[in-house]
Amino acid sequence: MRWLDPGEGGPAVEVLDQTLLPQHRRSVVCRDIPTLAEAIRSLRVRGAPALGVTGAYGVALGALVDGDAQGAAATLSAQRPTAVNLGWGCRQVLAAGPGPAVMLAAARRLDADNTAACQAMGRHGAALLGDHAKVLTHCNTGTLACQGIGSAFGVVRTAFEAGNLGHLWVDETRPLLQGARLTAYEASVLDIPHSLIVDGAAGALFAAGRVDAVLVGADRIAANGDTANKVGTATLAVLAHHHDVAFYVVAPTSTIDPAAADGAAIDIEYRDAEEVRTAVGIAVLAPATTPVWNPAFDVTPAALITAIVTERGVVRPPFQTGLATAAAAG
Amino acid sequence: MRWLDPGEGGPAVEVLDQTLLPQHRRSVVCRDIPTLAEAIRSLRVRGAPALGVTGAYGVALGALVDGDAQGAAATLSAQRPTAVNLGWGCRQVLAAGPGPAVMLAAARRLDADNTAACQAMGRHGAALLGDHAKVLTHCNTGTLACQGIGSAFGVVRTAFEAGNLGHLWVDETRPLLQGARLTAYEASVLDIPHSLIVDGAAGALFAAGRVDAVLVGADRIAANGDTANKVGTATLAVLAHHHDVAFYVVAPTSTIDPAAADGAAIDIEYRDAEEVRTAVGIAVLAPATTPVWNPAFDVTPAALITAIVTERGVVRPPFQTGLATAAAAG
Repeated sequence: MRWLDPGEGGPAVEVLDQTLLPQHRRSVVCRDIPTLAEAIRSLRVRGAPALGVTGAYGVALGALVDGDAQGAAATLSAQRPTAVNLGWGCRQVLAAGPGPAVMLAAARRLDADNTAACQAMGRHGAALLGDHAKVLTHCNTGTLACQGIGSAFGVVRTAFEAGNLGHLWVDETRPLLQGARLTAYEASVLDIPHSLIVDGAAGALFAAGRVDAVLVGADRIAANGDTANKVGTATLAVLAHHHDVAFYVVAPTSTIDPAAADGAAIDIEYRDAEEVRTAVGIAVLAPATTPVWNPAFDVTPAALITAIVTERGVVRPPFQTGLATAAAAG
Repeated sequence: MRWLDPGEGGPAVEVLDQTLLPQHRRSVVCRDIPTLAEAIRSLRVRGAPALGVTGAYGVALGALVDGDAQGAAATLSAQRPTAVNLGWGCRQVLAAGPGPAVMLAAARRLDADNTAACQAMGRHGAALLGDHAKVLTHCNTGTLACQGIGSAFGVVRTAFEAGNLGHLWVDETRPLLQGARLTAYEASVLDIPHSLIVDGAAGALFAAGRVDAVLVGADRIAANGDTANKVGTATLAVLAHHHDVAFYVVAPTSTIDPAAADGAAIDIEYRDAEEVRTAVGIAVLAPATTPVWNPAFDVTPAALITAIVTERGVVRPPFQTGLATAAAAG
């Protein structure tokens, strides 16, 4: 995702359409708020930190093209309920206004800060891993999700570039297969040694002693450390706990929601049954009338998290004080 | 799967092609051993108990059409390494020979016994469930997998027919989606209230208190109770243990392998990467060169199993003696 200046065909937000990867690399140029809102809702752009940056540029776009930054912020924030970064990015830019120029400058600053935050998370997280660690990850937390080098994936990439990654295990992450479609793609582009597994195979992988650490991103971290992330994350946390394997959440401090006391306060997005009844909308997997329970996220209890890695350092349990300090340091 | 007599176009084994369900109901008539072997290898017929009956009829078919029951048993047994029932069914019929007529009679008896065993497992298992239990199951263990009413699914069906089932949660069971394609199909044909979930969503389902019991089948049960079943089963067992939910294995005594001391002695089948890189061979889910780790089964440690339900009654931990007694009672 990137901002297009007038000289590049803008003002607009250009989104690489992630729903088409890895088969097609096609971009959508969003010149107005309805087009950008659709791109967010349809997951053409996704990933909590990337949504923060998208929201930021989106509010600047609204100010520029409609003279309505407030309306843009309200519309964009409402597209995905769970990722706190989306509304945060919108609010940051609104607060910098009024005036489209200062708002765009604020969005650019937020984008650059986010990229720097990924680098910092990569350093802090890689320092936690043992030599040649075999890491299991879920969903996609790389460049596509975060801009920069990513959050959990940025840690993997940092360890790999230091010659210190054993292996990357990639959960396919049904229903929308962000692991298979996006993380496997990013790993293969970077030549990171990796293998794809179905989500259910994680139990066998842990039992075989082939996982040294789990690294995941986050969509919202409550004040006590309870963490909402892509559905399947809580399953991995229980497996890691049972097999005595470290479980790390990697996320920028913009993901911390001090207003949510604990996981029960986090609104979980439920998505359409067709996501489960089909694969990437093409293959029919189940009878057309099969009822489906399709939460997009789950909540991992703080008690199952070894540490939370932010751009401002590593927060250890009990998380309450450390998270409050990290969130306030901005 | 059923035997076709000469008056019905046989001698042959007719197999409903499960790889095409739920979209198409198409049968393959196997008049020779290579065709039947391919049907087993390609999972057109699958499910441990159904493979036992298929092996039995297959040996009779080999005796009838080639005069070579031994060769048929050797070929058919070799198609799937993990399900012990396949070789068991072949051996039972071989032992009844020589002579095609007595072998076919033995296969018919084994088929009828298997159907009766499903009824008995259904009764024993349903008696373990609380009132209106919400049951989570994995893979397919119904009529398609077992003939008769099924093993774990037969328990669900028995509870439902007694008006005592709360809800059936169906794991989609990647990569081959036997839950989505087959169990959801069987549940909908029978009007059993059910919902489909992605495998990763089980953690959220347990955390929400929406699972009262897990019921799964088995492909091979070692002497100590360690149980090989469809990949993803061990993940559910850890989740059930963590959330203090009962975890039941339901399988006929032909699934017990006294020769395997524990799970480490069970040969796990690894299958092709394309199963994971695609959905039902149609939708492309990952880059074509992505390496894949694709075990078809995993092993659930006996310590995570609440009870093993067989047609001869319920075996409780420690399993060693009870399983030996149940296996020997035949």
